[in-house]
Amino acid sequence: MTSFREDGREAVEWAARYLERVGELPVLAQVEPGYVRSRLPASAPERAESFSAVLRDVEEILLPAMTHWQSPRFFGYFAISSSEPAILAELLAAALNQNAILWRTSPASTELEGVVLDWVAQLLGLPSGWHGHIEDTASTSTLVGLAAARELAPGRKIVVASEHAHSSVEKAVKTLDLELRKVPVDEAFRMRADALDLTDACAVVATVGTTSTASVDPVAAIADACQRAGVWLHVDAAYAGSAMVCPELRWAFEGVERADSLVVNAHKWMLVPVDCSLLWSRRPEALRAAFGVVPDYLRTTDAIDSISEYGPALGRRFRSLKLWAVLRCYGREGLQRVIREHVRLAELFEGWVREEPGWEVCAPRHFSLVCFRCEGPDEESEALLERANASGEIFLSHTRLDDRYVLRLAIGQERTTEEDVRQAWDVLRREAATL
Amino acid sequence: MTSFREDGREAVEWAARYLERVGELPVLAQVEPGYVRSRLPASAPERAESFSAVLRDVEEILLPAMTHWQSPRFFGYFAISSSEPAILAELLAAALNQNAILWRTSPASTELEGVVLDWVAQLLGLPSGWHGHIEDTASTSTLVGLAAARELAPGRKIVVASEHAHSSVEKAVKTLDLELRKVPVDEAFRMRADALDLTDACAVVATVGTTSTASVDPVAAIADACQRAGVWLHVDAAYAGSAMVCPELRWAFEGVERADSLVVNAHKWMLVPVDCSLLWSRRPEALRAAFGVVPDYLRTTDAIDSISEYGPALGRRFRSLKLWAVLRCYGREGLQRVIREHVRLAELFEGWVREEPGWEVCAPRHFSLVCFRCEGPDEESEALLERANASGEIFLSHTRLDDRYVLRLAIGQERTTEEDVRQAWDVLRREAATL
Repeated sequence: MTSFREDGREAVEWAARYLERVGELPVLAQVEPGYVRSRLPASAPERAESFSAVLRDVEEILLPAMTHWQSPRFFGYFAISSSEPAILAELLAAALNQNAILWRTSPASTELEGVVLDWVAQLLGLPSGWHGHIEDTASTSTLVGLAAARELAPGRKIVVASEHAHSSVEKAVKTLDLELRKVPVDEAFRMRADALDLTDACAVVATVGTTSTASVDPVAAIADACQRAGVWLHVDAAYAGSAMVCPELRWAFEGVERADSLVVNAHKWMLVPVDCSLLWSRRPEALRAAFGVVPDYLRTTDAIDSISEYGPALGRRFRSLKLWAVLRCYGREGLQRVIREHVRLAELFEGWVREEPGWEVCAPRHFSLVCFRCEGPDEESEALLERANASGEIFLSHTRLDDRYVLRLAIGQERTTEEDVRQAWDVLRREAATL
Repeated sequence: MTSFREDGREAVEWAARYLERVGELPVLAQVEPGYVRSRLPASAPERAESFSAVLRDVEEILLPAMTHWQSPRFFGYFAISSSEPAILAELLAAALNQNAILWRTSPASTELEGVVLDWVAQLLGLPSGWHGHIEDTASTSTLVGLAAARELAPGRKIVVASEHAHSSVEKAVKTLDLELRKVPVDEAFRMRADALDLTDACAVVATVGTTSTASVDPVAAIADACQRAGVWLHVDAAYAGSAMVCPELRWAFEGVERADSLVVNAHKWMLVPVDCSLLWSRRPEALRAAFGVVPDYLRTTDAIDSISEYGPALGRRFRSLKLWAVLRCYGREGLQRVIREHVRLAELFEGWVREEPGWEVCAPRHFSLVCFRCEGPDEESEALLERANASGEIFLSHTRLDDRYVLRLAIGQERTTEEDVRQAWDVLRREAATL
């Protein structure tokens, strides 16, 4: 254990220094494809090397090839944060190496997962009694919700979602051998409930906080239609769901309480590192019907379910530990503070864009994502993004709206301050001026 | 960062002490269902608590409710090990919070994953040029292999596997809306290649190291049949695959070089904590056809693939880091040493059982798993297992073979010594004597 203690000290110190200096590193990796591969040996070593040697290569070879999701000026996709208690909880989870394939193989992991999902359900104001568990990503959570829906409606092969639903819906539908029917959106990129056609549908996916614009589908109206037709309602709130911790933002989630399944990614806006996707269902028996395969060698006399019966994976690592650490070390208050500050910063940025001649906001802003562009052809906006990202000072991503190239500024890093957002705006205007 | 450094020191110290004393803790959790839940508050705290408070509850509330997979006397299912460099690599991965949804969002994670999969392929003696990536568990890897198979053979809905194939095959087949055709096994629990019926089949799953007995399907004969029929061959070597690092054990893998896809779980016998399932394919274009959904907001000009196009999840955490740390800090030699010692210990135990009147070995032993029972009705073997596990001294699991209840002793913990295996044998004989 001497070396573990020494190596551990070194690893913690490296991580601490990383978090201190991440704001000084280029946000987007400034390397060409093949950079890492060309710097590593072609084969594994024959004999053991020291952990220090690994750490040195993390610093010298890997670090320049990282896009820094932990940078305060990471504004791409949906920005995410790995908080300090969660980082340390991952260390503990790896040391404990619990594998909750059954309740008995880790009562602690199994029960803590249930407890923290109940805690989060309360924080978000969800109905009591929903069954919650953790999947790796929203892609899997959505697949699980749709597989459960299929189970209850054999023969009905259609999944309905708006044209702004996440690509993971298309992926899950393909995996499940179902078919996707896309519903058009209105001028605010919301699913048009009046255009819903539920013929032969087993499920509808409604999104609160779409990937392109964080638009909000009319969940209540969709829930009405689902209820009339006996169709499963899956709500994808992977990004925005965490905002329910703030009562003033709950207006956007009206109708979510009527979902059959709901996904919220704690690794997006709840300070937990990837991967930690939370999936609740009011009808867990359907999940179990879809995934409850228990062979002889896993039968026990324990009078309690195993979470592996509710999803595709049998092996389950101790993901609840990091979520629990965050809930304890931030409390409701801490989570609210982070989300409110991110929304405030986005609002501020939105205001700057609105006031600047030649720039426009391209979609209503509800949470911490601003969609915008500057006047001129798409090529210019594209070039602007490339230059801004190439500067290393900030990182943003893009989308297409009404067939126009649009920039997205997403705030979700715990370290992001008003000054960082101001810097993003400065860089964007500076680069736009040179076009 | 002061608190991160201090909390980090405390976390490393806790983990070090845990690994030092894990052999003294009851292997199987000695608690009733509800133990953890009843000891935790009903709601998340309103205000922030310290990380020390979390650590105290890990010790006082969670620890008694853990089954210790890291114990040297954990012999259940397939025993696994989380090694020290891998534990620290997980800390780094959580601090870096890389999310390799695209190459550009983490060139380091994307390229390192390719490099280490190539390294492991070489260590295992696999053909060069296979495309490798990491999934969470073998359940997902098998699903990916079968989805690729389905892609190449639309309309053919049958997946063929032996009745000893892992339950994850059944789960994946159900998820993919395919059908499972089970092939009987011979007296050594190997798939009977002469009983293979490939009518309407899109894939065969052959297993090297089945879950019940670690039996070895005749992969070469199965590959012949697959080749003739144009059927995808998926090889499940989730447990045993790591043994290919030892040339003297490669006899068991004859024909694996002809697989279309192959899964080996590094989190089983390669000293990496869950989750880290390695999936190779000689036909990656089929995986990409099954999972390559790229929406506008993820299009880039980077001239390189993203790994998320080869599997169900879009979000991808930095799993390759821990595998790389293990390969570096053990080297080929270190991995061979661990696996050879485990096989030696299993052989030793097998010998003791064979020599003991009233006890029998129930399946051929190839790797580090021994299947055995003592004479008498099933109820006695069942009671024996319950008592042995209830003692907290050892943990074993069971299976059913030829409709008889059979005990399984699986060696895979790095800390397991000859003395631990001797103790298991002593406990088993002691408990059997009291029946």
